[in-house]
Amino acid sequence: MGLEPLIWKEDSLYILDQRALPQKTEWIVAKTWQQVAEAIQNMTLRGAPLIGVAGAYGLALAQRAGEDIQKAKAGLAATRPTAVNLMWALEHVAKADDMLTEAKNIEQLEKENNAQIAKNGASLIPQDSIVMTICNTGSLATPGVGTALGVIREAHRLGKVKFVYACETRPRLQGLRLTAYELMQDGIPFAMLPDGASAWAMRINNVDAVIVGADRIAKNGDAANKIGTYSLAIAAEHHQIPFIVAAPSTTIDSDTESGSQIVIEERNANEVTEIEGHPIAPANCPVWNPAFDVTPHGLISHIVTESSVFAQPYNFAKELVK
Amino acid sequence: MGLEPLIWKEDSLYILDQRALPQKTEWIVAKTWQQVAEAIQNMTLRGAPLIGVAGAYGLALAQRAGEDIQKAKAGLAATRPTAVNLMWALEHVAKADDMLTEAKNIEQLEKENNAQIAKNGASLIPQDSIVMTICNTGSLATPGVGTALGVIREAHRLGKVKFVYACETRPRLQGLRLTAYELMQDGIPFAMLPDGASAWAMRINNVDAVIVGADRIAKNGDAANKIGTYSLAIAAEHHQIPFIVAAPSTTIDSDTESGSQIVIEERNANEVTEIEGHPIAPANCPVWNPAFDVTPHGLISHIVTESSVFAQPYNFAKELVK
Repeated sequence: MGLEPLIWKEDSLYILDQRALPQKTEWIVAKTWQQVAEAIQNMTLRGAPLIGVAGAYGLALAQRAGEDIQKAKAGLAATRPTAVNLMWALEHVAKADDMLTEAKNIEQLEKENNAQIAKNGASLIPQDSIVMTICNTGSLATPGVGTALGVIREAHRLGKVKFVYACETRPRLQGLRLTAYELMQDGIPFAMLPDGASAWAMRINNVDAVIVGADRIAKNGDAANKIGTYSLAIAAEHHQIPFIVAAPSTTIDSDTESGSQIVIEERNANEVTEIEGHPIAPANCPVWNPAFDVTPHGLISHIVTESSVFAQPYNFAKELVK
Repeated sequence: MGLEPLIWKEDSLYILDQRALPQKTEWIVAKTWQQVAEAIQNMTLRGAPLIGVAGAYGLALAQRAGEDIQKAKAGLAATRPTAVNLMWALEHVAKADDMLTEAKNIEQLEKENNAQIAKNGASLIPQDSIVMTICNTGSLATPGVGTALGVIREAHRLGKVKFVYACETRPRLQGLRLTAYELMQDGIPFAMLPDGASAWAMRINNVDAVIVGADRIAKNGDAANKIGTYSLAIAAEHHQIPFIVAAPSTTIDSDTESGSQIVIEERNANEVTEIEGHPIAPANCPVWNPAFDVTPHGLISHIVTESSVFAQPYNFAKELVK
């Protein structure tokens, strides 16, 4: 499955620096919760499920150092506002006596959830499908095979996916850097494309399904995910292509009634105006850089979790009990 | 109006190297038609109307050197297959006794057409509008104020445009590099955004109109333009936002019945996988890189030329007589 994005060893959290991939394989060694928080904030690691696991280990580091747990929890929670898995993981770990064991449990749970999401999602994919995805939702975004990319992996293994169109995912290019890397390692046939080419690919390349992850899902099924997802969902509807969201049930937020309540993180302009430190825009060019968008439930054909395949109208009552 | 992208002087065509903008201002001096052809092919200059003018000067260079005109015409025509203005300009110049004078006439005509397109297009824009555009269709893409960007300039001058969302336009970033440069020079308020953020911008930022250029318009109104345009058109329809195409009448191709007959140029993978020579993808990453897409006429509210404002159903009989 390639590189593991997080490893606990020697009382430290080893974090693969995803900003340097695929050109360089570098690790950050976090020994304090503050270092974990910084790594989440500056996107050394990313992917909603992985952020949750990292946050869990961060709190465990705080406990081992005898630090103020409430302060550490608040500090870790403040790193990125949109994904809800982090909040869920922090709540769970904070209640545990042995936080390190609980963090390991959450990591293991996410791994098992990934495998189950992959199976459930693959059940929706017809034989010999051409699918499209965005961002990175694979083994670099989670502790397991991934969410949307896990579904694609499983469906490919079953002969259901024959080709993947993967959006490059500006501004940070998680598709071009990370998903391309994972698909090449797995030997799954694919092509990267600029995000703007996605609707044209649907029209002329016979795309059969679009499969994406999520950072937060509201009670009505509205789903926040990487910027560009909403464009894909509209184009999928226009071409009558199923649009599938795959995420662990911890992504469903019982405190959020609808997408309009989800806080969308806006990130720095230099994510757009520079690539690896090289300016590609005029100096001081104004930029609008939302990290996520929200796809309304009406554009989503199915929401797949580890336990269920949901269809419209979305009702997560069973999932939310946990 | 900033930099002029083409200047005829000292029996040579001076071509501003748009690949280096906005960081560097460099000129290529073309003394042969082959050098002009190479500059069009490698995108030293770009923009359908500007390519037409450059091709005209290229043929004039061939005549002055006593070269085979048919060979030069074929060589220039083969540089880029999608835009039709180039073919139109080459046909016109080839018929002239003094090709240099005819090239200058075409340049002057395009300049006047730009001004007229701007006026006609601005008539469609309501007061205090927020508009969106893609690619560069300004004074770097044409010999005048531009096509879609010319409309925006004129509408801003009249108080009709108060803000512009400009798509960065991957893979070559003509929006981020060139349109940003022109808008900053003109003092028009704007923000650049990743192409994937365009639909989300329409949803939450109250975009009132989308205005784009075209490289070829079929007789039924289907319009080829920079890759990403079709995504914008679908999103505009979804949000009930007018979608306006602005182009000189030479962009309308009487030999093309519908968009399905338009040849779409596919360009090299390294346009996507590298930025300024720096790799941003895994080595040998497969890429799908169409330079253009085709927006079906049903998604286009208006097509604006120098002489007319067309609405559905499109009938260009009057324009095509010329």
